Amino acid sequence: MNFEFQKLFGMGDALYDALLAQHPEIACRVYAPVGSFTDLLPYLVRRLLENGANTSFVHQIADPSVPIDALVADPVAALAEPYAPDPRIPLPRDLYPDRKNSLGLDLSDQPTLQDLRARTLADREGEPFAPVETTSPQELDFSIARAAEVFESWSRVPAAARAALLERAADALEERRLELVSLIVREGGRTYGDAVSEVREAADFCRYYALQAKINFAEPKELRGPAGERNELALHGRGVFACISPWNFPLSIFTGQVAAALAAGDTVVAKPAEQTPRIGLRAMEILYEAGIPADAACCAIGDGEAVGAPLVADPRIAGVAFTGSTETAKLINQSLAKRAGPIAPLIAETGGVNAMIVDSSALPEQVVDDVVVSAFQSAGQRCSGLRVLFVDAGSAPRVLDLLRGALAELKVGDPAEPDTDIGPVIDAPAHDALAHHIRKLRKSAKLIGAAHLAPGLRGHFIAPIAFELQLDELPKVEVFGPVLHVCIYRREELEKILDWIRVTGYGLTLGIHSRIQSFVDQVVRASRIGNIYVNRSMIGAVVGVQPFGGEGLSGTGPKAGGPHYLLRFATERTLTVNTAAVGGVTELLAGSGNERV
Amino acid sequence: MNFEFQKLFGMGDALYDALLAQHPEIACRVYAPVGSFTDLLPYLVRRLLENGANTSFVHQIADPSVPIDALVADPVAALAEPYAPDPRIPLPRDLYPDRKNSLGLDLSDQPTLQDLRARTLADREGEPFAPVETTSPQELDFSIARAAEVFESWSRVPAAARAALLERAADALEERRLELVSLIVREGGRTYGDAVSEVREAADFCRYYALQAKINFAEPKELRGPAGERNELALHGRGVFACISPWNFPLSIFTGQVAAALAAGDTVVAKPAEQTPRIGLRAMEILYEAGIPADAACCAIGDGEAVGAPLVADPRIAGVAFTGSTETAKLINQSLAKRAGPIAPLIAETGGVNAMIVDSSALPEQVVDDVVVSAFQSAGQRCSGLRVLFVDAGSAPRVLDLLRGALAELKVGDPAEPDTDIGPVIDAPAHDALAHHIRKLRKSAKLIGAAHLAPGLRGHFIAPIAFELQLDELPKVEVFGPVLHVCIYRREELEKILDWIRVTGYGLTLGIHSRIQSFVDQVVRASRIGNIYVNRSMIGAVVGVQPFGGEGLSGTGPKAGGPHYLLRFATERTLTVNTAAVGGVTELLAGSGNERV
Repeated sequence: MNFEFQKLFGMGDALYDALLAQHPEIACRVYAPVGSFTDLLPYLVRRLLENGANTSFVHQIADPSVPIDALVADPVAALAEPYAPDPRIPLPRDLYPDRKNSLGLDLSDQPTLQDLRARTLADREGEPFAPVETTSPQELDFSIARAAEVFESWSRVPAAARAALLERAADALEERRLELVSLIVREGGRTYGDAVSEVREAADFCRYYALQAKINFAEPKELRGPAGERNELALHGRGVFACISPWNFPLSIFTGQVAAALAAGDTVVAKPAEQTPRIGLRAMEILYEAGIPADAACCAIGDGEAVGAPLVADPRIAGVAFTGSTETAKLINQSLAKRAGPIAPLIAETGGVNAMIVDSSALPEQVVDDVVVSAFQSAGQRCSGLRVLFVDAGSAPRVLDLLRGALAELKVGDPAEPDTDIGPVIDAPAHDALAHHIRKLRKSAKLIGAAHLAPGLRGHFIAPIAFELQLDELPKVEVFGPVLHVCIYRREELEKILDWIRVTGYGLTLGIHSRIQSFVDQVVRASRIGNIYVNRSMIGAVVGVQPFGGEGLSGTGPKAGGPHYLLRFATERTLTVNTAAVGGVTELLAGSGNERV
Repeated sequence: MNFEFQKLFGMGDALYDALLAQHPEIACRVYAPVGSFTDLLPYLVRRLLENGANTSFVHQIADPSVPIDALVADPVAALAEPYAPDPRIPLPRDLYPDRKNSLGLDLSDQPTLQDLRARTLADREGEPFAPVETTSPQELDFSIARAAEVFESWSRVPAAARAALLERAADALEERRLELVSLIVREGGRTYGDAVSEVREAADFCRYYALQAKINFAEPKELRGPAGERNELALHGRGVFACISPWNFPLSIFTGQVAAALAAGDTVVAKPAEQTPRIGLRAMEILYEAGIPADAACCAIGDGEAVGAPLVADPRIAGVAFTGSTETAKLINQSLAKRAGPIAPLIAETGGVNAMIVDSSALPEQVVDDVVVSAFQSAGQRCSGLRVLFVDAGSAPRVLDLLRGALAELKVGDPAEPDTDIGPVIDAPAHDALAHHIRKLRKSAKLIGAAHLAPGLRGHFIAPIAFELQLDELPKVEVFGPVLHVCIYRREELEKILDWIRVTGYGLTLGIHSRIQSFVDQVVRASRIGNIYVNRSMIGAVVGVQPFGGEGLSGTGPKAGGPHYLLRFATERTLTVNTAAVGGVTELLAGSGNERV
C-alpha cells in the first residue's frame, strides 16, 4: 500500500468514514493546521472558498442532482481533450485590439535566464566599452541643419508610411532584444527584468505612436459647416525636435521621444544621457535598419553643458521633449524663452516626491510586496519610484516588521547575475549623494531596516534602506535612489498628509493601499497627481494603458504613451475652400444639403 | 395692350414665330446684350446654364415627353401650396448636430438696422463713458488669491454642469445682443456687421467649449489593458488661468478665452485690453448673470505694465491664454519661464504678415471682393487680415483697376452710421503709426488707390489704401490697419513668393485665389500657415468650423475654436486600480476576460 488518505480535521467526515469502513487497511492521516489567528483565518477562508465553489468535488458530492458517473469521471480523461483556450481571453500578443502587444521574455524559465547571463557576461568580457566621442559644436550644427533641411520632405511622408516604419522599428527592437538586454544591463546597470521591460516599452512606444499617427495625422478631419464650403483640420509636424532623455530608462524613454517626434512628422536630434550613450546610439541604428531615414533622426552625444544647452538654444529647434530633473527642465524653458523666433513647445517629464498612503484596512503582505517593488526596484532610480510611505499607526508595527524582513532578503549586486534584485546606482556622484543622505538619516532618523551589502562588492552600490521620520522631517526634494522614508500617521491626520504632498509641489505618482472605497476616493479627490495606483505597485506604467506623466513640478504634460502626446509635437492647419466659387453649391443641387459632412 | 414680349436675339425663335403669327397685334422686343467679350461670355454661359436646366421651360418645350398640361400649368397655383422646407437642409440654428448655432441679426433689414442705430446713438448720448478704474496691486493680489482658493471646488463641479452654465451664458449673450452691439460699436469703434459677428462668435465659443467639456471632461476614458486592472484617463483643470485679450475683438476673444478656461475646470483672472475694458466687464457680468460663480472668474483692468506683467509673473497663475502681439507673447513667455514653481502653459495667438496669392485663372471680380473684405474690413484691424497681395502679372491690370474702383467706393466714418464701411482705428498711437507708414509708402511706393476721407471727419480715421511694391520692399512685420501692399509676380516667381512668406516667420492666414487645383495644391503644400482660405476672403473664421490660430511667429497653438484647444488648459490624470487585489479577477470568473473594455 504506497498511498494514504489525508483529511483536514473536521472536514469530509462522512466520505472518509464510508471509505475507511470498506477499506480499513488504508491509512488516513488527519491533519490540522497550527498557527496564530492571523495566519489561520485567511487559510481557512481560502479553503472555504475552494470547497464552496460549484465545481468543487466536496460541493458536488452533497448535491443529489449530480449523477454518480459525473462525480467519479476520470479527470485525466477530461484533461486529454485537445487544449482550447477561451476565445474571449486574448493571447498576450493580441491584448490590444488595434496594435500588437510587445513580446516578452519568460524570466521564470531557467534556460532563458542562463542564456541571457551567458550572453551578457560574454559581451562584457569580449566587447569592453570604448569611450564614445562627444559631438563637436560643428557636428551638432551640421546635425541640426540637416534635420531642418530634411524636415519638409519627412513631414510630407504620409502618416501611414511613417507609422509603418515605426512598426518595423518595433519589430526590429524585439528581434534584437537579447542584444539590447545585454547592453542595458552592461551600460545602464539594470537587472534583466528591468531591461526586458525596457525593450518591451520601447517597442510599445513605436507601435502606440504609429497607431496615434494613423488615427490623427493620416487624414484631415472634415468639420461640419455651411453648404458651399469645405473645412478640414489637419495635423502636421512642427520642425526639428530636440529629444533629451535620461539614463534611467536609456532605451525606452529615448526611443519613445524619438518615435513620437517622427510619428508626428518632425525630424529629430536626440541626446541620450551622457551615462548611457551606447544604448541611444544602438537604438538609433536599429531605427535606421528598420527604414527610418538617417537624415530624419540622429544622435548628439555629450553632457548637458556641451551638447544639451547649445541644442535647445538653437533657433532651428522647433520643440523640445525632455525627461530629467525639474531644475534642468526649468533651465531649458528659460533658454527656449530667450531665443529669437517662435515660442517653442517644451514637453518636460521631471521628478517627484512620490508617496504611498496605506490605511489600516490594507493587507500588510500586499503592501510590503508593492512597497519593495515601488521603492527599491531599479535601485530606486525610477521617476515613479516611492519615496515617502505613509502607514496608518494601526498597521504600522506589522507593516514595518514585514518591510524589515523583506529588506533583509534583497540581494544587491552585479545585475548580470540573475539572482540580483538590486543593481548599482548609475555613477559615483549619484552614489555619493545618496550615501551622504543616508549618513545624515542614520544620525537624525530611526532606522527601520536595510538590505545587506556583500563585503568586497565593487561598484556604485547603495543597499536599499528604510527610515522612520516625522512629517516635518520628510524630504521635500527627490531622493533618486533606494532610500525609503516612512511616516506613521493617525487616521485623523490624513488631511495633513494630503496637504504635505500638495505642498511639495510635485505631482507624479501616488500609491494608495486600502480596502475602503471611500478612503480611496477621498485621497484621489484631494490629490493633484498624474498617476495614481490603488492596491498595487506604483511603477511600471504601460504604454497606452497607463499614460504617464506628472503635473506641477513633475512635468508639463501631455502624458507619454497617452492619446494626447503627439498633439504637442504637431501644429494644426485649417483649410477652407469655397466650393461655391465655381458658381453654385453642387451639394445643394444634388439634394444633400448640409448633411454632407 | 399694356404688355410686350421680349426675346433674346437668336433664342426661342420657333416659339415667338408661332405666337406672333396668331397675335400680330402684340409687340415683341428683340434685344441683344452689348459689351466686350469678357463681360458677355460669362453672361452667355449663365443664360445657357439657366436654359439648359431640366426644369427650364425652354428645355421642356422641346421635350415631346412633357405633356402640354404640365407645360402650361399655372406657376402661381404651384406657389400657393403650403411652404415646406427641404428637411435635409437644416435651419441656420440647427446647422451643427451637437450644439446650437448662434443667433444672427438681419442687417439687410432696414428697420433692424435703424433700430440699432437709434439705440446706439441714444446710448452714446445718454451714457457717455466714465473712466474705468485700474485694478490696484492689492486688488489684483486678492483676485488671484480668491481664484486660487476657489479652484479646487470649481474644478470639482462636474463638467456637464460647467457646460450647462456656459450654454446659459451663450443664451444670455444672445439675449443681450442689441446692448452688446451698441457697446462694441461705441467702445470698440466697430461697425454693426463686425459687432453682430462678435456677439455670435462669443456665444459660439461658449457653446463649443461646453460641448468639448462634455465630450472630453465629463467622464474618464477607460483604457484597455490586462484583466485584473482598471485604467482610466481623466482631464482636470490646472488652476488659475490668466486670460489676456486684445481690443480688436473685445467681446469674442475675451469671452472665448474665459469660456475655455472655465470649461476645462480652471478659474480665471481676465484682463481685457485697456482700450476696451467696458466690454470685458460687461461680458463678465453677463457670465455671472448666467450663473458662473463670481469667485471663479473676474476681470483685472489696466494696461500690460500695470496689470498684465504682475499677473503673469505671479506664481499662483497656472497658465496664460494670450492674444496680442508677437513681442508681448515673447515677454510673457520669458516672464513665465523666470518664475518659481511649475512650468506654465502659454497659449499665444499673435500676429501675421498675411498674404493672398492670386493666379491668372482667378476671377478678378471675386478676387477684389475678397481682397477688400480681407484687407479693409474692421479697418484692417484683424489678426487674420490681408497685408500682402500677390497678383499674377497676367491679371494684375484688371485686378488693380477693380481694386482702385472698390477703394473709391468705401465709406470711412462713424461706425454708428449704418452706411459706414470702415470705422476708426483704435487709438491715437495706432493712427499715428499707420499714418507714418503710409507717408513713407507714398514716397517710396506706387499708389494704387485709396478710399476717400471726408473732410472734417474727427477721430482716428485711416482711409483704406493700397500700394504696389517690389518683393524686397514688402513689409516683414505686421502693419495692423487698412493698408494693403500689392506685389505683382510672374508665374515663374511663385517659389520665390512662397519663400518670402516662409521667411517672414509668420504663419497665421493665407488666401489663395485660383481655379487650377494643382496651383492651389502647390501653394498649400509649400505653406506653413495655420488657416488657409481658397477662393474666398481670409477673415471671419467660425468657431468649430474653422479652428483658428497660427504657427511660427503667429502663435503657439492649439487652435481657438478647435477640438484640441481645451487640452492645453487641462492636466491629465491616470488612475490605475488593481481590481484583483480582492483575491481574484471577477471578470475572468464571469467569463468576460479582456473583452471588458
